[in-house]
Amino acid sequence: MNYPNGQKRNTATKQVIKPLSTHYGNRGMSLEKDINITNTYYLQTNRAVIHKKPTPVQIVDVHYPRRSAAVIKEAYFKQASTTDYNGIYRSKYIDFEAKETKNKTSFPLANIQDHQIKHMEAVLQHGGICFFIIRFAANDETFLYPAKYLLMDWKHHLKNGRKSIPYHRIQQNGVLIPFKFQARVDYLSVVDRLYFK
Amino acid sequence: MNYPNGQKRNTATKQVIKPLSTHYGNRGMSLEKDINITNTYYLQTNRAVIHKKPTPVQIVDVHYPRRSAAVIKEAYFKQASTTDYNGIYRSKYIDFEAKETKNKTSFPLANIQDHQIKHMEAVLQHGGICFFIIRFAANDETFLYPAKYLLMDWKHHLKNGRKSIPYHRIQQNGVLIPFKFQARVDYLSVVDRLYFK
Repeated sequence: MNYPNGQKRNTATKQVIKPLSTHYGNRGMSLEKDINITNTYYLQTNRAVIHKKPTPVQIVDVHYPRRSAAVIKEAYFKQASTTDYNGIYRSKYIDFEAKETKNKTSFPLANIQDHQIKHMEAVLQHGGICFFIIRFAANDETFLYPAKYLLMDWKHHLKNGRKSIPYHRIQQNGVLIPFKFQARVDYLSVVDRLYFK
Repeated sequence: MNYPNGQKRNTATKQVIKPLSTHYGNRGMSLEKDINITNTYYLQTNRAVIHKKPTPVQIVDVHYPRRSAAVIKEAYFKQASTTDYNGIYRSKYIDFEAKETKNKTSFPLANIQDHQIKHMEAVLQHGGICFFIIRFAANDETFLYPAKYLLMDWKHHLKNGRKSIPYHRIQQNGVLIPFKFQARVDYLSVVDRLYFK
């Protein structure tokens, strides 16, 4: 069994590894990798079934060389029409997007698409759990920020032309996600607190 | 507003179009296209939020020409680790795969992957709604076939080397999906009957 990042899992010494005390720093890995490792761990331990959706690609030209796999020779990146992650947890539909920023004082709204906002609204309407995972790389902090706040910020953004969410707002309405050894971004522990009280 | 297949929707005459009586034949379109049109209709009418996942692609080489979009110059198709469609309906997680066959008397299991089976088992365990949509193109019939039967067939398949599910079994344990004008494969009407009694 390999981790998605290609590291071999050392099963022989598994028993000896002591759990690290809960802290909130990552180790310089990208947020996406951390979440993928976390989702693999959740899947293996039968905690949840949550996957990242593949990157949407518009395929234009495919070659079929003899005796080998089809090769895509021309393709383009498409905009995602939904969020990147979804699945099922404790019988509930769960749906989220993950973003990392180097900013220290605010989270820019520029890289969120209008149809992603619409998607999040629809998910909430239908009774799903929906949020953003936002990492401030400079502070080494990762927050779960519920969709309802993000939707409020977005409306505010449309009205007032504000292009970002202040850090203090995310700190106030979001919840810091603990870093753990296997569940590197242990967001389900926060989901338990926020959505299954 | 265009349908995903590129057809223009004639909004001017929308009111005049009489609903067709429910029947069970499609019009030679591919199952995937029919389901995409259906999902778009469900989304627009706020009935459900269900999307097809993008085709998973392993990207090897990307060019960045000046002043234009990035071009993927080399990529390969990857095996999907889950089913193709998922989303939320009536607060429940919903997950399915769609397959079309030209066979008349049975549905071949060959193009279902082992990890898709594992995925379906996990979804059922966590309380999700999970099924196959199977179209017999020759008979022009489309069935909703609940995952629990498919998992039984799969076990049988592993034990006895049977490589397909007989048509009569799908007819007996599945439910024929009605064809409608906008919801071309109106599977949610069947989901209502099977899972929300």
